[in-house]
Amino acid sequence: MTAQTIKSKAAVAWAVGQPLSMEIVDVMPPQKGEVRVKMIATGVCHTDAFTLSGDDPEGIFPCILGHEGGGIVESIGEGVTSVSVGDHVIPLYTPECGECKFCKSGKTNLCQKIRETQGKGLMPDGTTRFSKDGVDIFHYMGTSTFSEYTVLPEISLAKVNPEAPLEEVCLLGCGVTTGMGAVMNTAKVEAGATVAIFGLGGIGLSAVIGAAMAKASRIIAIDINESKFDLARQLGATDCINPKNFDKPIQDVIVELTDGGVDYSFECIGNVNVMRSALECCHKGWGESVVIGVAGAGQEISTRPFQLVTGRVWRGSAFGGVKGRTELPEYVERYLAGEFKLSDFITHTMALEQVNEAFDLMHEGKSIRTVIHFDK
Amino acid sequence: MTAQTIKSKAAVAWAVGQPLSMEIVDVMPPQKGEVRVKMIATGVCHTDAFTLSGDDPEGIFPCILGHEGGGIVESIGEGVTSVSVGDHVIPLYTPECGECKFCKSGKTNLCQKIRETQGKGLMPDGTTRFSKDGVDIFHYMGTSTFSEYTVLPEISLAKVNPEAPLEEVCLLGCGVTTGMGAVMNTAKVEAGATVAIFGLGGIGLSAVIGAAMAKASRIIAIDINESKFDLARQLGATDCINPKNFDKPIQDVIVELTDGGVDYSFECIGNVNVMRSALECCHKGWGESVVIGVAGAGQEISTRPFQLVTGRVWRGSAFGGVKGRTELPEYVERYLAGEFKLSDFITHTMALEQVNEAFDLMHEGKSIRTVIHFDK
Repeated sequence: MTAQTIKSKAAVAWAVGQPLSMEIVDVMPPQKGEVRVKMIATGVCHTDAFTLSGDDPEGIFPCILGHEGGGIVESIGEGVTSVSVGDHVIPLYTPECGECKFCKSGKTNLCQKIRETQGKGLMPDGTTRFSKDGVDIFHYMGTSTFSEYTVLPEISLAKVNPEAPLEEVCLLGCGVTTGMGAVMNTAKVEAGATVAIFGLGGIGLSAVIGAAMAKASRIIAIDINESKFDLARQLGATDCINPKNFDKPIQDVIVELTDGGVDYSFECIGNVNVMRSALECCHKGWGESVVIGVAGAGQEISTRPFQLVTGRVWRGSAFGGVKGRTELPEYVERYLAGEFKLSDFITHTMALEQVNEAFDLMHEGKSIRTVIHFDK
Repeated sequence: MTAQTIKSKAAVAWAVGQPLSMEIVDVMPPQKGEVRVKMIATGVCHTDAFTLSGDDPEGIFPCILGHEGGGIVESIGEGVTSVSVGDHVIPLYTPECGECKFCKSGKTNLCQKIRETQGKGLMPDGTTRFSKDGVDIFHYMGTSTFSEYTVLPEISLAKVNPEAPLEEVCLLGCGVTTGMGAVMNTAKVEAGATVAIFGLGGIGLSAVIGAAMAKASRIIAIDINESKFDLARQLGATDCINPKNFDKPIQDVIVELTDGGVDYSFECIGNVNVMRSALECCHKGWGESVVIGVAGAGQEISTRPFQLVTGRVWRGSAFGGVKGRTELPEYVERYLAGEFKLSDFITHTMALEQVNEAFDLMHEGKSIRTVIHFDK
């Protein structure tokens, strides 16, 4: 039986800066190489708010936001072979085609196969699957998880173990994987290493977990909001530091604390000055700093080249360097094996109708993650 | 028989900015853990000129410059076991003690064992072995190869195959190893990779050789002085580019030339703007840029962090990342095996008495390397 257009509850972003609007939208059937997914849960992430604010140069409206989801395959389009109806999946804003120059390189997770259309809010064929009363609604990050039903390219889906609660592992669709992956995949932190993590939001806390899983000997967590320190310690941080308590640069404090600097550091904020501190708190000879946070448009990082010539390395990480289809399922397995918990991150759960409240909580710094349950 | 103080011909730098002065100096016998070496040849490098100019904050006068030498062990101090009288050696301004945190890390060649005294122009015991009429003369970079006899710590000597002509392999004491090592040791360029090399002085040309030895598929050599292009091509460059011939940033030119950017780039000048170009001409997802050149005091490098988040890596290299005692002898063996030539670099040979002429040629851009022969 061929799939038909279906009606779906969705939170639509009609225009920049406006609250999301609950609508019943039309979701077309999946076309060739596409999959329609019934969302079970989705996290609400800063990046959704960033795009809604209008600061995202790629933002296109009207659209359906959301990119940190978990769902079940409802129907598949022609030629789809890697997932079947009923499979549990995590949408991937970084797809994995396995065929492009990037995928074939083996050196990066930044598949570029559908980069162009995804950046324009469209499916790979250049059209959209969402509409309301005949008005096209754009996709967002190739995922649009703020809709009960969404359509994605097959290459943008990680098939995961159905034992895993989608209300929790949806967080592996963005923030948690970004932080943990930066530690384990990008930096490849080894047992016994010393680590500094700047910024204790969802990504920074995930980096703390990753460092603990990697058996780092010292995990220094840095934030100007000390209310984050209890959870950071609980997740594995050995030292929690507030830069405001010192009258010298935080990199100097960390270099002293660690007899020369840390082996690895991670910037999880998006502040270019903190990125510099993160590099310069690294140990001469081998310390590596990983930029995870996304800085404002046009902002630049700086340092003296001597920092590099004397052995420090500056790199970055997107989606934790994790290849979505081949590696993300393994993260789900490690979660199921009890290697890490996700419940620590979930401070709130809500119905989709409350999504604007979730944004408010985030802006007020009152939530780590709100997870939307579609059955609420 | 215990070694005695001996008289040695030396080019002494009495003060900043003055021509070197030929003198007969006293060279004390090597103390515990030290070795006295009869120099056979030494290159004249930009770093010697940099210190003489007064721009080097660590410069101390009077001193004996020179750090790119080849010589023969004349006498050894108490406890010296790794070299014997008659051994052929290359002085190392980056020693290798094998015992400090840096050496033990296995991650860096930046041995710190004698860093403090070396930076002050002294032997590890805090004194100098050079004097003239009772006036102490300081060491330089722990090597002071502009003297017929010089004293070095045992850990600052690479024992090399005596088959190798010291008049040529002396260049492995600095520039050539710095360029080749950055390619082969620091970046670990693999066969088939694409490479961009900015600046075609001795280090840049050595990087070209290193890239050719690594079997890079494309070696793009960049300089504003096109007279360097013939030699660069001869050494293996596949493309030679003058940024002045384009009306857009050179990184854009290279990205277009290479369908997305190079796998590896090397900055061999010390210009912070070029360092940025070198990073930004790297391929998204995996391109790595290595800073080799030494920038002026206080200068900074900058870029948008997006360059790193999308997979580029910024690192640096000192002495090519080569561990002097354990790895440099292998470079000599590869030279002896005919894997690369050093004669291409040697545009002039002179007696020590002509060392000021060598500086002049270098300042005028007329030499790649002048090698001083002590028997001339």
